[in-house]
Amino acid sequence: MNKQKKVAVILSGCGVYDGAEIHESVLTLLSIERCGATYHCFAPDIQQRHVINHLTGEETSEQRNVLVESARIARGNIKPLTDLNVADFNALIVPGGFGAAKNLSDFAVAGADVRVQVDMMVAVKAFAEAGRPVGLICIAPAMAGRIFGEGVQVTIGNDAETAAAMAQTGVHHQECAVDDIVVDSTHKLVSTPAYMLANSISEAAAGIDKLVTAVVGMC
Amino acid sequence: MNKQKKVAVILSGCGVYDGAEIHESVLTLLSIERCGATYHCFAPDIQQRHVINHLTGEETSEQRNVLVESARIARGNIKPLTDLNVADFNALIVPGGFGAAKNLSDFAVAGADVRVQVDMMVAVKAFAEAGRPVGLICIAPAMAGRIFGEGVQVTIGNDAETAAAMAQTGVHHQECAVDDIVVDSTHKLVSTPAYMLANSISEAAAGIDKLVTAVVGMC
Repeated sequence: MNKQKKVAVILSGCGVYDGAEIHESVLTLLSIERCGATYHCFAPDIQQRHVINHLTGEETSEQRNVLVESARIARGNIKPLTDLNVADFNALIVPGGFGAAKNLSDFAVAGADVRVQVDMMVAVKAFAEAGRPVGLICIAPAMAGRIFGEGVQVTIGNDAETAAAMAQTGVHHQECAVDDIVVDSTHKLVSTPAYMLANSISEAAAGIDKLVTAVVGMC
Repeated sequence: MNKQKKVAVILSGCGVYDGAEIHESVLTLLSIERCGATYHCFAPDIQQRHVINHLTGEETSEQRNVLVESARIARGNIKPLTDLNVADFNALIVPGGFGAAKNLSDFAVAGADVRVQVDMMVAVKAFAEAGRPVGLICIAPAMAGRIFGEGVQVTIGNDAETAAAMAQTGVHHQECAVDDIVVDSTHKLVSTPAYMLANSISEAAAGIDKLVTAVVGMC
């Protein structure tokens, strides 16, 4: 019997300004393997909210699909989020990037009125209800109130305005250093600021390594 | 005076099938920082050879720009390859992915008749002529014969057909394990197979870490 732990990773596109943050995503995959676990990637089969030219920061007229772009990070080895069966995985991790706040939810535009994309809501709730650990990185914890309900404890670092909007959704926000994590043992939920605070890839890696180790350790 | 070593990284898009291999690129950036050095990313401001849907593997009708897509990996912090001044950097590293064989050169279609994109040729030759070390990852060493000339020693792993095409350009190909490197001390050139052989991100990371350490150690 294969005892290796399996971690589902939900991506939200491919690029910090309109999709999954690429460094955070790759660092997560690396950390999972270095913890002795395996991963499979998933993403919702929906259009991106928009496409940002990452050189200029400007919105373009292009349309791109979240699953198709996420496949770039996953080297083609990815499935639609509706195919994610909680019974097949021991844990779930969601990297950040604006895709978490634009595609997996609408936090980037709606703030405290955030709604979580339906496939995303179903997937994460399934892990929560099965008592399987979840890791949320960077801005992804902005969805935690809607998914886990009142009193859930997470961090997005120390941005007061973002934390205030999250508080209105029932989240208990805790400030956290870039190389550290916040653990909500009741909800088996771990979060880390990553590029909400990181000034370098090695800073982001420090917190992500700690998050992945904690999540895999809870399985 | 800042004694930190600076490494230029040349990207070729964003995605294994039509651009820079994302894992290899991110692992390179992480390794550079973990060696105590800093990096800056560059890419040619040209159209991609084509755009591949990474979910289906099929070519699409889209057009994308190599510099603009590479900016996704660099989080916007990237310059056109023509701005790369060898005097500002101690070393150069080029991750793989089909972008190295489709955008930085035409090896993917031309094989032994490979031509190197002009900005790429100028940039790498400048490092070679200045005696500054260069690291080539995955399929990027397929350009080495054209740039460094007859007798240069590199690896792309153990693919006989690819090695044979490279040999016709003057390359002396050496077989190499996924977690190892080939060092051509005469040319200060280091190569590693990465995803030419790797079956996992941690396998790719092992060789890339070794390559970056060797390149930074030669500065």
